[in-house]
Amino acid sequence: MSCQRVFCPITVILAGILLLGACTEQTGPPPYGLVIHGGAGSGTRADISPDLEKRMRAAMSDALDAGITVLKNGGSSLDAVTEAIQVLEDAPEFNSGRGAVFNAQGGHELDASIMDGSTLAAGAVAGVKTVKNPILLARAVMERSPHVMMAGDGAEAFALSLGMVPVSPDYFDTGRRKKQLDRALQKLRNDNTRRSDTHQRSDYFGTVGVVALDSAGNLAAGTSTGGMTAKRFGRVGDSPIIGAGTYANNDSCAVSSTGHGEFFIRHVVAYSICARMQFDGMSVQDAADDMILRELAQVQGSGGVIAMDARGNVAWPYNTASMIRAHQSRDSEPRILLFETE
Amino acid sequence: MSCQRVFCPITVILAGILLLGACTEQTGPPPYGLVIHGGAGSGTRADISPDLEKRMRAAMSDALDAGITVLKNGGSSLDAVTEAIQVLEDAPEFNSGRGAVFNAQGGHELDASIMDGSTLAAGAVAGVKTVKNPILLARAVMERSPHVMMAGDGAEAFALSLGMVPVSPDYFDTGRRKKQLDRALQKLRNDNTRRSDTHQRSDYFGTVGVVALDSAGNLAAGTSTGGMTAKRFGRVGDSPIIGAGTYANNDSCAVSSTGHGEFFIRHVVAYSICARMQFDGMSVQDAADDMILRELAQVQGSGGVIAMDARGNVAWPYNTASMIRAHQSRDSEPRILLFETE
Repeated sequence: MSCQRVFCPITVILAGILLLGACTEQTGPPPYGLVIHGGAGSGTRADISPDLEKRMRAAMSDALDAGITVLKNGGSSLDAVTEAIQVLEDAPEFNSGRGAVFNAQGGHELDASIMDGSTLAAGAVAGVKTVKNPILLARAVMERSPHVMMAGDGAEAFALSLGMVPVSPDYFDTGRRKKQLDRALQKLRNDNTRRSDTHQRSDYFGTVGVVALDSAGNLAAGTSTGGMTAKRFGRVGDSPIIGAGTYANNDSCAVSSTGHGEFFIRHVVAYSICARMQFDGMSVQDAADDMILRELAQVQGSGGVIAMDARGNVAWPYNTASMIRAHQSRDSEPRILLFETE
Repeated sequence: MSCQRVFCPITVILAGILLLGACTEQTGPPPYGLVIHGGAGSGTRADISPDLEKRMRAAMSDALDAGITVLKNGGSSLDAVTEAIQVLEDAPEFNSGRGAVFNAQGGHELDASIMDGSTLAAGAVAGVKTVKNPILLARAVMERSPHVMMAGDGAEAFALSLGMVPVSPDYFDTGRRKKQLDRALQKLRNDNTRRSDTHQRSDYFGTVGVVALDSAGNLAAGTSTGGMTAKRFGRVGDSPIIGAGTYANNDSCAVSSTGHGEFFIRHVVAYSICARMQFDGMSVQDAADDMILRELAQVQGSGGVIAMDARGNVAWPYNTASMIRAHQSRDSEPRILLFETE
């Protein structure tokens, strides 16, 4: 079945200009950069005290610094992601590492994942209880085991076998998270339906994530979380799931998700954005918007993503009231945004 | 930028014929059917005794019967998948349920997942030790909890909370699997490199999976496994990962994977086949072949998939020596294939 096409001269000229533009853009080393999220949610200025806001901005700034320093010195995007996430895991303000929320039993179960866009190597841990920096353990799973994902006691045993020093579970006990647990458990008690979850309108999901592009042109992505307040039954959310919470491929993009994890798993959010770029030729902005603002919004799947393509283009759509987010690159100053409008 | 197109009359006529063809095909109820796999691997006739072959064929036949009976009676693809997988979980010949392989500690950790293509509802369990039919627990996670995935002790606690009767861990102890464990541990002891895995050339991966289309036009997929012989550290493979081991969406296809799980996670195999159909317009055959025979084969990611689209078209590519597979539909007799050529 053939169909003749008439190429008018103006098309050829336009194509030439575009081609020239593309070539010009790609000269010189790629513009290294990184994007960070600290969770999407329904939080507004009214939900965060000036003091908490100040500490959150400081931690985001430290995380940007840590990541950009790696990239500026010619380090890998994988190292930048690891370093930046470690800073946020150590900050009690975010729902990852030190600031992880409580589960229904009053304990903590942490999840993390990381992926190298140049090799598709990936590592993930789910449900760890005594690991100070789950992102480091996820990276060790990637680099020092034949596996991609480890869960629970086995993941802890792997950490011990590598000589990682466990922290006492109460390292993760913080007053703010304890109050959130008490509120959530109260809500569960008042709630008759088994299917309801414990998201509260004023909560951020609080997961942290980083995507980065280094000067060698390699993408990487990572995500770390304490999960859902008052979660039960060893629930695993999207953060440790390669494809849902984290994905990176130099041929398309790097993505880290934050939101209502069950929807992110069902819609394979992180990979699906990359698939739209790879198979449908969408830009990173169109691909991320199509997933978050159309597909997920249609099913009331709350949350957002940060995404970056191999030329450093950034998208950070969210369908919640706001998302804590930050960006810095070779060519742009640090930007830290906590609210929808600022 | 505009470009004139000249539609020649023959194109219009051909399009008319195609449209007519499409309409004819879609009259009447969809041709219900199901596909089953019992694992991909390097097994040949020499690796399976005539007695084992006979028992495997009998179990595959029973599983086809169970699934097709549901579909013939107007039942849902979700029920057909559940029933067929339950038959295979109860058969000691396959690496799921009763016949689950041993982990390095001499125990068993079972994984399963299921997905409804009409709603994208999904359920998964990882690392359960006393659950007779993990596919039933995965389905309960989907239908009776707000979550998609549960792991370890929490998943067991959820099963108990539903009144499921636990089996003793030695329910899963079978002589054939014990011999495989001993061989694998011996190989590990003889092996100096930490990164090596324990796949043996003569082993099937042995995971089971089913995809089905019902007469209402709904797709479903499910997968169940005992994982990798001599696995350590709470390793989670692709089978309980929605996107990697299992995916179903009425708009594209239903897929169940079997193979070297780490590769299936990194390449998000099940969902990626659906994404090729959805975003690139590929047929189910082209999409599945492109993933298994090109993308995975390029990186030595061994395994295969079964896939079915919403019109009942079936693809079952594998890049291993063989894959245990079976198909039956409204319009076709049961076919059970254990080897590459038969």
